Amino acid sequence: MTSVLHDPRFRAFASDNYAGIHPEVLAAIADANGGHQIAYGEDAYTERLQEVVRDHFGAQAEAFPVFNGTGANVTGLQSMLPRWGAVVAAATAHINTDENGAPERVGGLKILTVETTDGKLTPELVDRQAWGWGDEHRAQPLVVSITQSTELGTIYTPEEIRALADHAHERGMRLHMDGSRLSNAAASLGVPLSAITTDAGVDVLSFGGTKNGLLLGELIVVLDPAASDGLVFLRKVNMQLASKMRFLSAQFIELLSGDLWKRSAEHANAMAARLRSGLEAAIADGSAPGLRFTQATQANAIFATLPADAAARLHESFRFYDWDAARGEVRWMCSWDTTEEDVDAFVDGIRAELAASA
Amino acid sequence: MTSVLHDPRFRAFASDNYAGIHPEVLAAIADANGGHQIAYGEDAYTERLQEVVRDHFGAQAEAFPVFNGTGANVTGLQSMLPRWGAVVAAATAHINTDENGAPERVGGLKILTVETTDGKLTPELVDRQAWGWGDEHRAQPLVVSITQSTELGTIYTPEEIRALADHAHERGMRLHMDGSRLSNAAASLGVPLSAITTDAGVDVLSFGGTKNGLLLGELIVVLDPAASDGLVFLRKVNMQLASKMRFLSAQFIELLSGDLWKRSAEHANAMAARLRSGLEAAIADGSAPGLRFTQATQANAIFATLPADAAARLHESFRFYDWDAARGEVRWMCSWDTTEEDVDAFVDGIRAELAASA
Amino acid sequence: MTSVLHDPRFRAFASDNYAGIHPEVLAAIADANGGHQIAYGEDAYTERLQEVVRDHFGAQAEAFPVFNGTGANVTGLQSMLPRWGAVVAAATAHINTDENGAPERVGGLKILTVETTDGKLTPELVDRQAWGWGDEHRAQPLVVSITQSTELGTIYTPEEIRALADHAHERGMRLHMDGSRLSNAAASLGVPLSAITTDAGVDVLSFGGTKNGLLLGELIVVLDPAASDGLVFLRKVNMQLASKMRFLSAQFIELLSGDLWKRSAEHANAMAARLRSGLEAAIADGSAPGLRFTQATQANAIFATLPADAAARLHESFRFYDWDAARGEVRWMCSWDTTEEDVDAFVDGIRAELAASA
Amino acid sequence: MTSVLHDPRFRAFASDNYAGIHPEVLAAIADANGGHQIAYGEDAYTERLQEVVRDHFGAQAEAFPVFNGTGANVTGLQSMLPRWGAVVAAATAHINTDENGAPERVGGLKILTVETTDGKLTPELVDRQAWGWGDEHRAQPLVVSITQSTELGTIYTPEEIRALADHAHERGMRLHMDGSRLSNAAASLGVPLSAITTDAGVDVLSFGGTKNGLLLGELIVVLDPAASDGLVFLRKVNMQLASKMRFLSAQFIELLSGDLWKRSAEHANAMAARLRSGLEAAIADGSAPGLRFTQATQANAIFATLPADAAARLHESFRFYDWDAARGEVRWMCSWDTTEEDVDAFVDGIRAELAASA
Repeated sequence: MTSVLHDPRFRAFASDNYAGIHPEVLAAIADANGGHQIAYGEDAYTERLQEVVRDHFGAQAEAFPVFNGTGANVTGLQSMLPRWGAVVAAATAHINTDENGAPERVGGLKILTVETTDGKLTPELVDRQAWGWGDEHRAQPLVVSITQSTELGTIYTPEEIRALADHAHERGMRLHMDGSRLSNAAASLGVPLSAITTDAGVDVLSFGGTKNGLLLGELIVVLDPAASDGLVFLRKVNMQLASKMRFLSAQFIELLSGDLWKRSAEHANAMAARLRSGLEAAIADGSAPGLRFTQATQANAIFATLPADAAARLHESFRFYDWDAARGEVRWMCSWDTTEEDVDAFVDGIRAELAASA
Repeated sequence: MTSVLHDPRFRAFASDNYAGIHPEVLAAIADANGGHQIAYGEDAYTERLQEVVRDHFGAQAEAFPVFNGTGANVTGLQSMLPRWGAVVAAATAHINTDENGAPERVGGLKILTVETTDGKLTPELVDRQAWGWGDEHRAQPLVVSITQSTELGTIYTPEEIRALADHAHERGMRLHMDGSRLSNAAASLGVPLSAITTDAGVDVLSFGGTKNGLLLGELIVVLDPAASDGLVFLRKVNMQLASKMRFLSAQFIELLSGDLWKRSAEHANAMAARLRSGLEAAIADGSAPGLRFTQATQANAIFATLPADAAARLHESFRFYDWDAARGEVRWMCSWDTTEEDVDAFVDGIRAELAASA
Repeated sequence: MTSVLHDPRFRAFASDNYAGIHPEVLAAIADANGGHQIAYGEDAYTERLQEVVRDHFGAQAEAFPVFNGTGANVTGLQSMLPRWGAVVAAATAHINTDENGAPERVGGLKILTVETTDGKLTPELVDRQAWGWGDEHRAQPLVVSITQSTELGTIYTPEEIRALADHAHERGMRLHMDGSRLSNAAASLGVPLSAITTDAGVDVLSFGGTKNGLLLGELIVVLDPAASDGLVFLRKVNMQLASKMRFLSAQFIELLSGDLWKRSAEHANAMAARLRSGLEAAIADGSAPGLRFTQATQANAIFATLPADAAARLHESFRFYDWDAARGEVRWMCSWDTTEEDVDAFVDGIRAELAASA
Repeated sequence: MTSVLHDPRFRAFASDNYAGIHPEVLAAIADANGGHQIAYGEDAYTERLQEVVRDHFGAQAEAFPVFNGTGANVTGLQSMLPRWGAVVAAATAHINTDENGAPERVGGLKILTVETTDGKLTPELVDRQAWGWGDEHRAQPLVVSITQSTELGTIYTPEEIRALADHAHERGMRLHMDGSRLSNAAASLGVPLSAITTDAGVDVLSFGGTKNGLLLGELIVVLDPAASDGLVFLRKVNMQLASKMRFLSAQFIELLSGDLWKRSAEHANAMAARLRSGLEAAIADGSAPGLRFTQATQANAIFATLPADAAARLHESFRFYDWDAARGEVRWMCSWDTTEEDVDAFVDGIRAELAASA
């Protein structure tokens, strides 16, 4: 009835959300189908998921599947904070810029923002907002939230996360991580997921699945049970409780029980690296006039500025994001299914448009 | 990696949420996979979905896919109401009893409840709460919300809905319908979906997919554009915006573009009817002592009371819901995948336990 | 500049909110004036208030002045409940009927209502909603809220409150009291305030001042510190923190440090009793045809039904509330400043209009 | 009973909230007392207030008395915005820093902050956040909010406000003004209140009373009726509806019907000017080593840095605010009741401690 309505050969550099379902994940959904399973999480897949998650994140970890990243962030943060709590975050954080105020409106949270150059907080930057405890007039800063990899494609080292965790914990604060692209960060660093989460002092994590080949699904992973309260209830209140949860859990089992999470993330990272090096070569040989990178490329995203007319023409053939129109900054993102041919054609296309602009 | 972790032969009478994905729906998901599609709803499937929805619900209809029923209800109702608005609903309504206060906590709504005997509102019952407009002390009753089929397995006729719509509209109120099992109602009545929605004066609808064979997904369907404002924004704020929306839309295209919605609903209804008639025969021949039906069986659910010890023993072999423990009332629900053999075995089981109790 | 714009001889039977400031309270405000006091509660009057409150409510009591009754109820209840909490209350409770959803919209609370005949809960009535703990789908009933005296002018005895407190506490619930007319209840019962609050097991109290002769002001009184969390912050968040708090506190010191609270409440009660007995005499001698009392008169309010035309004519000369227009029920309320002459004239007026209707 | 518990000779430089009630205002409260008035705003004083407000703010103006500044800001802003709306404001705005997230938590608003040097927005600064309309991921910037006089004691000229209003209106945005110290600004500029509000394009105003000699009370003043919706309901929902409203309204009538608003504000401003010039003289003659002003003194507040040890010792004799502890910045505020002797003694005290530090 439905049949194929789209061109499956088309791929963009816009977002890892444009990609579809990894075939192994789709097969896992099919495996979990058939017959009945108890709804709302009392199924065999959600039970197994807990084991898989503990293998990665430690014996204390508990996972709560939810629908999307905003749902994971807001619900996780809410479970960490009293009604008068605030979150210290980079001004560029997804929770601040891309969730249409859901943390404030649904979560009742206040976000205390800090300007950064690369999307990364430091203990010093945290201190610009981490003060005023006990003052009833000020939203109480009780959680620091960082994104790994960041919204600007940069990555925290394990040591940087540990420093933030220690800094937060010494002040009675907790550390939350928006890990919608955590796999890309771990793959880039060549470390296990635990090295940049549990072992680095993160308390509660949003672990992303959708951007790494799932149909949809994110996990709220509580790493320190003392840092979170009432998630079972909050997930329901926040309209993030899936009745047929087996299909969320089965996807995450598939992603995490083998190396799929790493394979897919490594591939997306490698494609971004290929894109960057292709363009750096073009810059070096003078065939990319006006192109400048604005951030390090540490995961699967590239940020660059280029002349407005070149960007406009490039948009006619390729799909990508204008990140900061005022500055002429664009974002190019690779996915688990981006191919070398895609990248090379894109490099050629960029070169052509830049040459035409020069 | 995942493999099958459950027994696909097991089926329960607990909820249509226990069932899995209809094979045709799973095939539609696979068809929609491959390559890239623009995220957040600008994909070919969501575009086609609008046509399919208009075929069913009229030229003005617009569909907003969301994740789950609570999300559809809260977001749809919020779009119909100012911040000081209230919803008149049956005390048994899902929005009042099973959403852990999401309408109040997330939506900022007030629900004005009315007691009913069968889960159905009437104009007279509405009037118990529909008053006090202009009085700033009272939450302003501006929407009536009904459930079709109801939480008690009963069904509104098209005329009954029309009477409620007229009654509401005459008072400046709007009519919302929680249609998480709308297909079962239409199939039971033998009418098109429009007959009990658009044509009967419903303004905004939650159209259920999950309980009728989808992996997950519900639609907010705006039937009268003047009745709803800002859904595009509210869906995002309420954390109900799917990035890979094509996979929600493809499922609904599959459900609605042919007769799958009806086939599946008719089957579930037929299985409930078979269960009811099997048990009525048992009552008639004296082999079901202590069994009494508490509601008419008009869709896919049966409500009955039976002796506590019989219910307890029945729970050892079959899974179902205790609906009102104080009264000894249970709920038995059939699904698109319930078989005649399942029903007959269940009838036998009930008869056996009732005989043992007598 | 302002001068007197109203007729100070006019008095109504509409609400104790229509009355003004008791002269002793106004004098106390003047006493507290002059010079500077630290804002937001660190003043000498708020400090003394704590002693005065402890004298009445016990050594553990702590008082938080707020602006109005809705603010006291919502903030107090919020401090008693997690984000997934619900309050069991009579359907007639002020929090359910007269706060335009502030408990839901501002507090994020769910109210689980119970029908009563006289505005009073009992343990049996509480049980109609007190169930489902641990079920994430159901708003968790963790507080019982009662009003003393009730919205229907009735009063709980100390024993009835103790029974509710024990019942709640045995189930892990807390007992909240909306005491916007607590003084009237204590005066009517002839007991100290503690007898129907602290000593009867109430955990958190809204103590009313406005209706008993204050300019404005209510107290949230925490009777069991373990039952409430974060009030200092919640009062600010809920926009109930007075900068010049000395003027709220000074009023309550005046009300509570002597017998003003009791004197004023006794007087209002006595005027209601005089009104009731005057009308009962009229009924007895046949001069009040069609008049029927619908509630006991135990505090300062009288509820009665009378013929619609008589009520309409009575409205031309006297101001009072239509309570339930459908039933022809009215509310007549006496205040600290109602005089015997006011009452006698009102009795005469009622008699005259009833005679004219007969 | 209450008597005087404080030393009425003590005055501080901490906040205009530390001061008490102007005697003329207290007399107006007494005048409004006596007899009954209809509650919740249908009284003679609230009616008269509307005339008084229209005299100042134009024929379209409507005033809604509320309890406090946070209540006025949140309720006013909420009335200007849909549920997905955002407010562009200076990072130093009271709504961002001193309301413990009430705009977010109670109002469901998102605040988009901009860094400034002097607490004042400009069209250019507004543009840093005023973009992204129609993008469902971004909280929609539909209101600009400015504070007059600002939280840093600076003042917008009428032309500056007009430029902001035009800039906002051209973009479909509205202009909100937090005028908790509007009187100080108008007095400083020597213009009528309308010149910096209605005539300059402000749409909705919080007009402050508490800081200018009232017991308590603020007005939400709607200047353009098309800019605000549902205030009557929102005021109730937000727990800002006074039952005995006559006492709020009478205070504002007193403040605004003559020149009391201006007299008091001019006095406070003059005392701040005296303090500043006294200290500038001290700097000039070398008797204030280490003292530096950080903001212009345009209303009744002075911001300065001084050596930490001098500030600490000064705190032993005088009460004032540490504004930015990290920078050693303090705030000194004058009130309607600050005397020349207070100022001169403070100048002497500052000089003495600075000399001791040098």
